[in-house]
Amino acid sequence: MKLPGQEESDVSSASKNVPTGELDSGPGSGLSPDGPLDTDSRELEVSKDPLLFIQLNELLGWPHAPEWKETGRWVLFEEKLEVGAGRWSAPHVPTVALPSLQKLRNLLAKGLVLLDCPALSLQELAEQVTRVESLSPELRGKLKALLLQRPQHLIQTPCTSSCWGSAHLREASQEEEAPLKEQHQNPLRQKFPPGAEAGAVLAGQLGFLEQPLGVFVRLRDPVVLGPLIEVPLPSRFFCLLLGPPTLGRGYHEMGRAVAILLSDLQFQWRVRRASSLHDLLAALDAFLEEVTVLPPGRWDPTARIPPPKCLPSERKRIPSQLRVAKGPFVRRRTPAEDRHGRRQHAANPELQRTGRLFGGLVQDVRRKASWYLSDFLDALHPQCVSAVLYIYLATVTNAITFGGLLGEATDGAQGVLESFLGTAVTGAAFCLTAGQPLTILSSTGPVLVFERLLFSFSRDHSLDYLPFRLWVGIWVAIFCLVLVATEASVLVRYFTRFTEEGFCALISLIFIYDAVGKMLTLTHAYPIQRPGSPAYGCLCQYPDPGGNESQWTSTNPKDRDDILSMDLGLVNASLLPPPECAQRGGHPRGPGCHTVPDIAFFSILLFLTSFLFAMALKHVKTSRFFPSMVRKMLGDFSSVLAILLGCGLDAFLGLATPKLMVPREFKPTLPGRGWLVSPFGANPWWLSVAAALPALLLSILIFMDQQITGVILNRAEYRLRKGAGFHLDLFCVAVLMLLTSALGLPWYVSATVISLAHMDSLRRESRACAPGETPSFLGIREQRLSGLAVFILTGISIFLAPILKFIPMPLLYGIFLYMGVTAISSIQFTKRVQLLLIPAKHQPDLLFLRHVPLSRVHLFTAIQLACLGLLWIIKSTPAAIIFPIMLLGLVGVRKALEWVFSPQELLWLDEPMPEKERSIPEKGMEPEYSFSGSDSEDSELMYQPKAPEINISVN
Amino acid sequence: MKLPGQEESDVSSASKNVPTGELDSGPGSGLSPDGPLDTDSRELEVSKDPLLFIQLNELLGWPHAPEWKETGRWVLFEEKLEVGAGRWSAPHVPTVALPSLQKLRNLLAKGLVLLDCPALSLQELAEQVTRVESLSPELRGKLKALLLQRPQHLIQTPCTSSCWGSAHLREASQEEEAPLKEQHQNPLRQKFPPGAEAGAVLAGQLGFLEQPLGVFVRLRDPVVLGPLIEVPLPSRFFCLLLGPPTLGRGYHEMGRAVAILLSDLQFQWRVRRASSLHDLLAALDAFLEEVTVLPPGRWDPTARIPPPKCLPSERKRIPSQLRVAKGPFVRRRTPAEDRHGRRQHAANPELQRTGRLFGGLVQDVRRKASWYLSDFLDALHPQCVSAVLYIYLATVTNAITFGGLLGEATDGAQGVLESFLGTAVTGAAFCLTAGQPLTILSSTGPVLVFERLLFSFSRDHSLDYLPFRLWVGIWVAIFCLVLVATEASVLVRYFTRFTEEGFCALISLIFIYDAVGKMLTLTHAYPIQRPGSPAYGCLCQYPDPGGNESQWTSTNPKDRDDILSMDLGLVNASLLPPPECAQRGGHPRGPGCHTVPDIAFFSILLFLTSFLFAMALKHVKTSRFFPSMVRKMLGDFSSVLAILLGCGLDAFLGLATPKLMVPREFKPTLPGRGWLVSPFGANPWWLSVAAALPALLLSILIFMDQQITGVILNRAEYRLRKGAGFHLDLFCVAVLMLLTSALGLPWYVSATVISLAHMDSLRRESRACAPGETPSFLGIREQRLSGLAVFILTGISIFLAPILKFIPMPLLYGIFLYMGVTAISSIQFTKRVQLLLIPAKHQPDLLFLRHVPLSRVHLFTAIQLACLGLLWIIKSTPAAIIFPIMLLGLVGVRKALEWVFSPQELLWLDEPMPEKERSIPEKGMEPEYSFSGSDSEDSELMYQPKAPEINISVN
Repeated sequence: MKLPGQEESDVSSASKNVPTGELDSGPGSGLSPDGPLDTDSRELEVSKDPLLFIQLNELLGWPHAPEWKETGRWVLFEEKLEVGAGRWSAPHVPTVALPSLQKLRNLLAKGLVLLDCPALSLQELAEQVTRVESLSPELRGKLKALLLQRPQHLIQTPCTSSCWGSAHLREASQEEEAPLKEQHQNPLRQKFPPGAEAGAVLAGQLGFLEQPLGVFVRLRDPVVLGPLIEVPLPSRFFCLLLGPPTLGRGYHEMGRAVAILLSDLQFQWRVRRASSLHDLLAALDAFLEEVTVLPPGRWDPTARIPPPKCLPSERKRIPSQLRVAKGPFVRRRTPAEDRHGRRQHAANPELQRTGRLFGGLVQDVRRKASWYLSDFLDALHPQCVSAVLYIYLATVTNAITFGGLLGEATDGAQGVLESFLGTAVTGAAFCLTAGQPLTILSSTGPVLVFERLLFSFSRDHSLDYLPFRLWVGIWVAIFCLVLVATEASVLVRYFTRFTEEGFCALISLIFIYDAVGKMLTLTHAYPIQRPGSPAYGCLCQYPDPGGNESQWTSTNPKDRDDILSMDLGLVNASLLPPPECAQRGGHPRGPGCHTVPDIAFFSILLFLTSFLFAMALKHVKTSRFFPSMVRKMLGDFSSVLAILLGCGLDAFLGLATPKLMVPREFKPTLPGRGWLVSPFGANPWWLSVAAALPALLLSILIFMDQQITGVILNRAEYRLRKGAGFHLDLFCVAVLMLLTSALGLPWYVSATVISLAHMDSLRRESRACAPGETPSFLGIREQRLSGLAVFILTGISIFLAPILKFIPMPLLYGIFLYMGVTAISSIQFTKRVQLLLIPAKHQPDLLFLRHVPLSRVHLFTAIQLACLGLLWIIKSTPAAIIFPIMLLGLVGVRKALEWVFSPQELLWLDEPMPEKERSIPEKGMEPEYSFSGSDSEDSELMYQPKAPEINISVN
Repeated sequence: MKLPGQEESDVSSASKNVPTGELDSGPGSGLSPDGPLDTDSRELEVSKDPLLFIQLNELLGWPHAPEWKETGRWVLFEEKLEVGAGRWSAPHVPTVALPSLQKLRNLLAKGLVLLDCPALSLQELAEQVTRVESLSPELRGKLKALLLQRPQHLIQTPCTSSCWGSAHLREASQEEEAPLKEQHQNPLRQKFPPGAEAGAVLAGQLGFLEQPLGVFVRLRDPVVLGPLIEVPLPSRFFCLLLGPPTLGRGYHEMGRAVAILLSDLQFQWRVRRASSLHDLLAALDAFLEEVTVLPPGRWDPTARIPPPKCLPSERKRIPSQLRVAKGPFVRRRTPAEDRHGRRQHAANPELQRTGRLFGGLVQDVRRKASWYLSDFLDALHPQCVSAVLYIYLATVTNAITFGGLLGEATDGAQGVLESFLGTAVTGAAFCLTAGQPLTILSSTGPVLVFERLLFSFSRDHSLDYLPFRLWVGIWVAIFCLVLVATEASVLVRYFTRFTEEGFCALISLIFIYDAVGKMLTLTHAYPIQRPGSPAYGCLCQYPDPGGNESQWTSTNPKDRDDILSMDLGLVNASLLPPPECAQRGGHPRGPGCHTVPDIAFFSILLFLTSFLFAMALKHVKTSRFFPSMVRKMLGDFSSVLAILLGCGLDAFLGLATPKLMVPREFKPTLPGRGWLVSPFGANPWWLSVAAALPALLLSILIFMDQQITGVILNRAEYRLRKGAGFHLDLFCVAVLMLLTSALGLPWYVSATVISLAHMDSLRRESRACAPGETPSFLGIREQRLSGLAVFILTGISIFLAPILKFIPMPLLYGIFLYMGVTAISSIQFTKRVQLLLIPAKHQPDLLFLRHVPLSRVHLFTAIQLACLGLLWIIKSTPAAIIFPIMLLGLVGVRKALEWVFSPQELLWLDEPMPEKERSIPEKGMEPEYSFSGSDSEDSELMYQPKAPEINISVN
């Protein structure tokens, strides 16, 4: 929920694009406030009322030394003064006993209510409120003096460097009217938007009163009431609840009740417009109509409930007849929209087919051209600088990791240098021309897997790899252009979550399998030496007449045991280590000379270090420790820090672990080739035609990878103003494909995770916010400069290459594993697989579990597992390279599932496919709502993460 | 909270010992129900009312196919039918909109209320409830037929092996009166105590009614109403809420409101005794007086609140005047009691000084003698068998770990065999004679640390260790007897949490430091081989005339480089590995012959494996995965499983890692000594007198370790019936000290963690419990047999010794680290150190943070850190052996803290010392309650863990 004041100031420009469906997200409670107000106009005005800060000053210490002390405050949630600790409690949902509200109603009904009171100062106000008939003049004077007494505020200065509680209770005895210095310095003040007002509630027991005194004042013009409020805000409301000590803490509770009432936006709206006591009481009754009741024996009334992650919409509370009357404005959202908040297929104009050749591309270019200038002007914000730093480091880490892995997978045909160069060139070009400039191009998991398969294929058939790859690239570009021309991108709607999850799970599993596999391979290269293993022996033999070198040379040692048991006879030898031995003209002899001990286990340690450290740092982000800035830094840079730590450890021990291969100068990693790939090389001419076949497979992969990422980035929840450009993006990828293939650089597509991180670092959020409220999201700073800067920096970083050769490969395998594990953990499929292990009683309250029988959920999961198993089997056969077609086959499997599952079940477990959207009547989609719907669906949104469940592909 | 029915049946024998203070735990809410009932007698009767199961049958499908469907059920919490998923929701706190309660009140006020209705069947009841004036005879008939229609129940059969949802909705069209088979087979039935009753609520919209119909029936004799209720319980209450469709879901909500009311114990109590409609409405009003209200805009009314961990006491809801009248019975608990629930110093009769020599011991013996027979009879319960298995495995793990570490620390003077033998003998003897037979004797951290220091002292001064140790043991026994005679155990009250935490933190840190230190030491024993390191060379040289062996022998190689660079000249050599070389009469030559590569890193891997795996398994216990049995097993046996995993890994790779040393036959680990230690050995006679000095230190340590454990075990919250025996326990420890010293076995004291685990595995808990309710704790099966069986099994396990030599030492270091980390994580001190890193805003809502300023909390933590630093410094100097005195010094520091901190602050951060308890008036201890107390203190208990914050010492 936004605060009214700030919503106005910041959201106005962004609100254009808010889908109308979001304004109303479900049926109301069915209760209608019975006030005489014009509800139709209220909805608009509620959000225009200024923010109200309410403070409860309690009268303590009667009769010895009466003094006012601020013991509670409210904006949205309640903060309570922890008297002993001298600090404010964490904000929590305010609760109050029902009798307190009823007593308050009685007190106000017979008390003094001044609406539009013209008082201009605390002095005048005190004068007005003490004009109560039941009070003698003497008591009035005493009361007035008491009201003018300066209250004690707890003003917490912000933690600057350390957080050694520096709160201080300011007490003052002199009576002053002007606001104090510390009131002005109160950091809370900066949180409030301009125009915020205050409400003061004064409550307590006062011995000299004979009967309770209740005064409610609405000031005509809000005025700063001296030191009454801890922040020098002009006060609009003033409420005095005093009485003889018989009621005890009753006055305090009534004061809390008033404050809770005033912090309610609907009550506030009504009271701001009330013209009589009757209106005030009607507002209170309307509030009571809507409260939820907790039974006494089941709930401790004093427990503090933490603020919910998402508040019920104020608009939902408007009586239902109003919404019905409004027609299209209050279109009811379908459950699919509610649940996923994603893929507003119908609402996405970018995915409407025009029917003309290249029609989509033309439209995209037109749409984006109108924003092109603003794409640079909008970047003039300091936030972009930090975004550049963050994304730059992530990009470089990606370039190193993928570069290293590609280098290994292609025997040096690709490498770190190519990775840097390609990333910089293609990324920058894409940022300048693409439809969605927030996208970050990167090597992605699927393309990496495909390139590895392509390389082994070409090696198995003794092909010249790079020329072959060039033709594949050319064909891919052609196929992609065809896809752009035919507006094939609109087909992306057939990729439901089922397909996405299969895609993501397969690639993640390949990552995990490969990472572990590579580590085990290392133990072959650097064998572990078991006790009694013959690998110890090594001596340095000199070509001496006494030693019979010929014996060594002639009997080319095949069987190691033979050498060992063989009596060497007389040799001229020393125990110099091999390199020095060679220097002195000798020959190192024996099986122990070539073994490098300790490397295998140390590599496993490095691998575990980088994996576990990256995982741990990722979790720091959501922990309580450290200020949020530090936490965010540690979480965001987890891979970089893990790599740095591992490098430090490796350098400290100085072992000869396998390192990242980096060429010494700026030239391609593969020795002997220039930057331009020759079109044929040693390959026969017809291979340039045959390359169309693998290119078809790669095209499918690139189309899926690119477009699924595109859809995720352009989801409605990100509130992008400048629109998407699916066709233009694919066009750019196709052109860049040509470039990278010709130069022998890696292939690039849009990467989901890093692009989302880019968007996330450019979020615009409301600044001023009430304690306990989560800042509201206003939109993304859409521009082209931050991406451009990232890739220019990446280009410059090519000069860092010499440093990179200190990075041990096991570290990169660890990061690789981390990527795979992170990606596979992020999909719902994994949650459902976990459900198989959780007894029904302990299962989390997931939305689909409420609506789909457990056995059906498990069946759906089992089918997904079976598909995954099949994909894995194909991937393990020589036919592995056709796996993109099988991924596409998932769409067919999903279609077939409609025979097994009911539309409702698929709606909860997946999402509808396009045709179905039209054929199923909206009512039919949700049969259970007909009798149990209205009270459950809305709340369920609370349990769902608001963050997108991303990670379509690993990158 | 206990369910009324079962409390009666099981707790009666245990309730004798419940401290009276627990019956009332705080001031009431100040609201008093205004019913005309005799509140004095009510308190006792509330708990005698039978348990009530309430079911809501909703009328669905009107007008086409009206049918009743059970859509909600209540005992303590609400369970809602997830219609789509066909399962019950998780139990949650029931909430209802206030207007529903008010509408219900209006409906009942003008409806039909039958109290003590004599109906004996559903048929008769339907007859009675349809006798409403407003209904025509025809409608009555239709309504009656509807009421007799069999409702749909969702009966969930329990998950047997797999949890593939096997729920089934039983629908039946025939009208039968007898309860159905599935009603009888409903597993829910077994959860209810005998005598449980049911309440049926029928609600829904019925088109042919012209005005709402509300009927409330209390049956005179509860009767099984055919298939109305899903469990064949006799129904006591029946409520019918039907009406025309204008109200929509209003009837459903009113039905929920009735169910929530009936599930409230106070309302139920009143309605069971109501004699008129007026009483019924008064009960409803009394309920409304106590409800808590959640404001609409801050809380989604349909959110499901999970059941709180601890429910507010029903007794608390009794009006306060009653409690005041009752005097001592309702003694108000002090905050210290509330907070810690520990150390009821004043209430602990075992810690009252008698003033006579050995007076405490005599009393202990007398008290325990009367229970001695029952100590064996009470063990006849299957629970004891599983307890024996669990504790046996834990004891053996402890014996192995500590035995291995002692063996290393004392150069074989102690060892695994001694550890097994000593554990079995002393443990069994203690179980048979001690005051608290639930205690498990074990080697503990403090004693291990001391023994290591004692050994290095005796080695440094070239003493014969075991005879010296014998005298230390004799002196310790004497000192302990003096402590028993003078009833010194009562001084344990001066050990506040401050002392305990210092004790625990120091020992834990020593564990952590040693574990890591030992791992690093391994890398010296098995050096890592860096590239170019000279350790490669090794050849097998034969004593040949050609080779000049004298050269090797004469120039005793000091400088390794010398050997290497030295030209060996002509040698007769081979590359056979050292063992085979020696077999063939050669000599292995060269620095590479003695190095064992790969061991260092593999040891680190094993170390990490056992540590991380044990940690992970411990967390499984609190995860959602697996059925609770499996989860508990994995958690409980985490160390054993971690060791087994590590052994498997080690055996698989077959590397020569350092293993646990185990003698081949049943004889002391130290070669050449018999089982009896000679009293003097090679030591001078006066050493037997000088041994008194270290014995004094050890006595302090043993006294602290033994008695703090004793106090923790005998805390009031465990509800032990047979009393403690502090003096007797110390006496037993002293006698066993003599035995173990004479036989050269390790020293034993009571171990906190494993003893608590023992108690925990013998918990008696209420079996029948409402969904969502945590089972209530009834007491511990106090007996001597389970402990005895554990130690007899441990004794038998000595024959396992040959297997133990396959356990690599790094695994034990890992478990050692795990113990240290677990112990130090469990104390509040650690939480406060963590607070230093958490920004004030994100700090958890800890009790002391509400009452003590953050800066004072940090100051207290800083002082503790300083003390710990000082202890650490002392421990690192040659004077390390005096550390027990310094630990005792913590008591003095704590005393001095009273000059720095106010009593209130110490009360929250620590606990009061004995003298202070008397000198501070109770009122003065809690000044803030005078104005803000009553609404906050009780709820805070909810946030505190109920489990004891244990781990005084590591074991």
